[in-house]
Amino acid sequence: MGRLDFSRRNLLGGIAAAGALAATGGLTGTASASTTGRLPSTVDVVVVGGGISGLVAARRIAAAGPSVLVLEARDRVGGRTLNHTLANGSVVESGGAFVGPTQDRVLALLAELRIQTFKEYAQGDNVYVANGLPPQRYTGTIPPDPTILPDAAVLQTRIDQMSQQVPVDAPWTAANAADWDATSLHDWIKSTTVNPNTAKLIESYLQPLLGADARDVSLLFFLWYIATEGDERNPGTFERSAGTSDGAQDSRIVGGSQLISIRMAQQLGDAVALNAPVRKISQNGSTVTVTSDRGVVTASKVIVAVPPPLVVGIDWDPLLPPKRLQLLERMPMGALMKVDAVYDTPFWRAAGLSGMAVSDTAPVRVCFDNCPPDASVGVLMAFIGGATWADWGNRPLAERRAGVLRQFAQFFGPQALNAIDYVEHDWTHERWSLGGPVAGMGTGTMLRYGSTIRQPFGLVHWAGTETSTYWSGYMDGAVRAGERAAAEVLG
Amino acid sequence: MGRLDFSRRNLLGGIAAAGALAATGGLTGTASASTTGRLPSTVDVVVVGGGISGLVAARRIAAAGPSVLVLEARDRVGGRTLNHTLANGSVVESGGAFVGPTQDRVLALLAELRIQTFKEYAQGDNVYVANGLPPQRYTGTIPPDPTILPDAAVLQTRIDQMSQQVPVDAPWTAANAADWDATSLHDWIKSTTVNPNTAKLIESYLQPLLGADARDVSLLFFLWYIATEGDERNPGTFERSAGTSDGAQDSRIVGGSQLISIRMAQQLGDAVALNAPVRKISQNGSTVTVTSDRGVVTASKVIVAVPPPLVVGIDWDPLLPPKRLQLLERMPMGALMKVDAVYDTPFWRAAGLSGMAVSDTAPVRVCFDNCPPDASVGVLMAFIGGATWADWGNRPLAERRAGVLRQFAQFFGPQALNAIDYVEHDWTHERWSLGGPVAGMGTGTMLRYGSTIRQPFGLVHWAGTETSTYWSGYMDGAVRAGERAAAEVLG
Repeated sequence: MGRLDFSRRNLLGGIAAAGALAATGGLTGTASASTTGRLPSTVDVVVVGGGISGLVAARRIAAAGPSVLVLEARDRVGGRTLNHTLANGSVVESGGAFVGPTQDRVLALLAELRIQTFKEYAQGDNVYVANGLPPQRYTGTIPPDPTILPDAAVLQTRIDQMSQQVPVDAPWTAANAADWDATSLHDWIKSTTVNPNTAKLIESYLQPLLGADARDVSLLFFLWYIATEGDERNPGTFERSAGTSDGAQDSRIVGGSQLISIRMAQQLGDAVALNAPVRKISQNGSTVTVTSDRGVVTASKVIVAVPPPLVVGIDWDPLLPPKRLQLLERMPMGALMKVDAVYDTPFWRAAGLSGMAVSDTAPVRVCFDNCPPDASVGVLMAFIGGATWADWGNRPLAERRAGVLRQFAQFFGPQALNAIDYVEHDWTHERWSLGGPVAGMGTGTMLRYGSTIRQPFGLVHWAGTETSTYWSGYMDGAVRAGERAAAEVLG
Repeated sequence: MGRLDFSRRNLLGGIAAAGALAATGGLTGTASASTTGRLPSTVDVVVVGGGISGLVAARRIAAAGPSVLVLEARDRVGGRTLNHTLANGSVVESGGAFVGPTQDRVLALLAELRIQTFKEYAQGDNVYVANGLPPQRYTGTIPPDPTILPDAAVLQTRIDQMSQQVPVDAPWTAANAADWDATSLHDWIKSTTVNPNTAKLIESYLQPLLGADARDVSLLFFLWYIATEGDERNPGTFERSAGTSDGAQDSRIVGGSQLISIRMAQQLGDAVALNAPVRKISQNGSTVTVTSDRGVVTASKVIVAVPPPLVVGIDWDPLLPPKRLQLLERMPMGALMKVDAVYDTPFWRAAGLSGMAVSDTAPVRVCFDNCPPDASVGVLMAFIGGATWADWGNRPLAERRAGVLRQFAQFFGPQALNAIDYVEHDWTHERWSLGGPVAGMGTGTMLRYGSTIRQPFGLVHWAGTETSTYWSGYMDGAVRAGERAAAEVLG
């Protein structure tokens, strides 16, 4: 245990090439990740998981000198980010997509990788449909519904105030942690609001945010989640969490967010092994042995950067520390799918609409303009998450498609029925994610078991967006977690 | 899919032997389970998991004719039951131990296997220690604490009334399911009681019951759990759940509860394969292929009888139905350990004490007389679960031992310090249980995802105590679930 054995540095042929490049500041290779063939038997650091977090960690480690090998279960990198190429060649995202202010680490990475961003389209009016009334135009984050506005104002104020009492790196130490972790977010909202429709509307925000509903998470977890949506100088706020311009949905990525991982993997070359699901991790105090479908690799350190339920599924020898195991058993992935309807043009823009809509009716509780940066086609994107997913995510595709287009038409006019393409991606179907966008915590979990979230286990360190103290659940959190894990391993 | 192909019946040599015996009513073999060597490549039914539930299912199937193979990951059968032999040869349980009225299926199985039961010692007084006051003697289920008695009476009445509104086979259809599943049990207790100490005392009951605290489970899950603690004619009640005589802790098993599984495995002979963890389950519509560390077996049907988090860890092809996967991700195992202190004699009995005690102080929130039937030695047993486990389960053994004995001495006198042996078993350390005694559900889970709990997945059927509609979490529930799964496969 302790420091890496740097004596083996660069002795590993192709695997070390990325490290050698990195050491000279030349991490600009275009080699491909390996997809078949035997893996090296020894490497300094194995990274489990080729999403953003794992690749960031690997890149940092390679740049510092040690040899590294990323083992990715899928035949692609990117984890919960996934590009989809439309018929006209434009790229949209089937997974994580948005970046915004205070997400400094992912923004820095984008700059470093020379990937551009563009503003999420937010001109014109949003649309609000609720209480059986006709669609109503509005601007800003909170729909101007006179029946819920007083509640919403109180909720927003209290969420912001209370979340600032939750330390992002130790939410279980908040003065009210025991009370806040005993209560579901649903019960707290119910006790804080007057109009029951307020609680209903909030699901339109929570379902995309967490792939879950207010009843599924504890108040403490939610307050922590809000607290993390900022940085050291700018405390997280509900406004930033829910907002488009200047909020968490401020900007998108030219070429699609998966490009972040693709670029990093290109630089790492054959230090990234695809089709290599990890089945077993054994450690003996001085080395750690990782068994994957493509072979067994022994390392000095391992970084695990995969969703919590997948960590439980690895055969650990010795077993994970029981308290951490209990934590991970209590971190289910959210239930979320993303659907895109494609049109010849973004016709709603011409009508002075942003493409953003909020509704109290399933299947589309919230949608966004998801056009490519040149708007060469029009794309409307809806999240179907949590309770809405449990219902509509399990209906036949044709029925769901019809339901989605019917609501798009309600929001933006009958042209929305004339989609030229319809694309959907359900993250609960992903073997190597088991859901999305993030793992949540119900009542009792964070208070009792949360403190183990980043505790190294012998030679094993933890990355993945769930382990970040800022923007957990976002690409920025993935970057931060990867950087921290790399620093632990290198330090 | 559909009915078994009985044409292969009894063509499988040793594997079919148990079936042949069974068919003639002769399931009395004493052959041993296999521990090494290749498995047959084909069998009618594979059962994953050699706990009570899996073995019951296998025995039923073998008795009906089809060949069966039980794949057990451990080098022993019994799952969450585990015998421990004391220095004098007496057997006590490190896992599930108690049986009681309305647990008809496990009682019938015991009779069939010619295993005797004996009454849990319940003569004399129980001991109650709370609020910093000296120990107080009492009888019955609820300590006679005047500060909590009014609360306890209200709680008990309401728990019983409300639980009777929860259908044991479909709790998500209860009229108040949405409300009850949005609320943590903790918040409901808080809103239903006057004295905060009532909620504290209830943890002494919940921590052994669930390996969890009131904040960890939803009100709906808890009401369902109570509802299941009965049978078709006798609705579950809090009294039966918490009670010793005539309750869930009424009786114990001569020879230890693991004997149930050992006897069944003896009858099944080499139709039980130990050291055979299952890694992958693939199905194609007509056959299902199970990959274990001891080989690959193809079958017509599979019954999976392992704890929910272990189901998630199997590599499923195709992936589990997403809604079921979401359910299983939300069913963490409880955190529970059992500790036994052994004495030359059950000295407390002579003092007119039952050996049962309840305390508001950790580590011993509740303890029982755990003497062997002949009382050849004295044994006191304590449960350390939930929040108490999160603290004391993670301290050094010596510190925990001292804390346990100190409390035993407080309850039963200074002789309790003179233990001749001290044994503990922590179920969170068990690779093939991942906790104990049962998987719980936090807010949101049962309402949204619970309906998938027993839904077959193609050729795969589900057993395990968590899938039972009566006595889920108990040995009786394991028997019922195994019987139901066998009936599904045979039907």
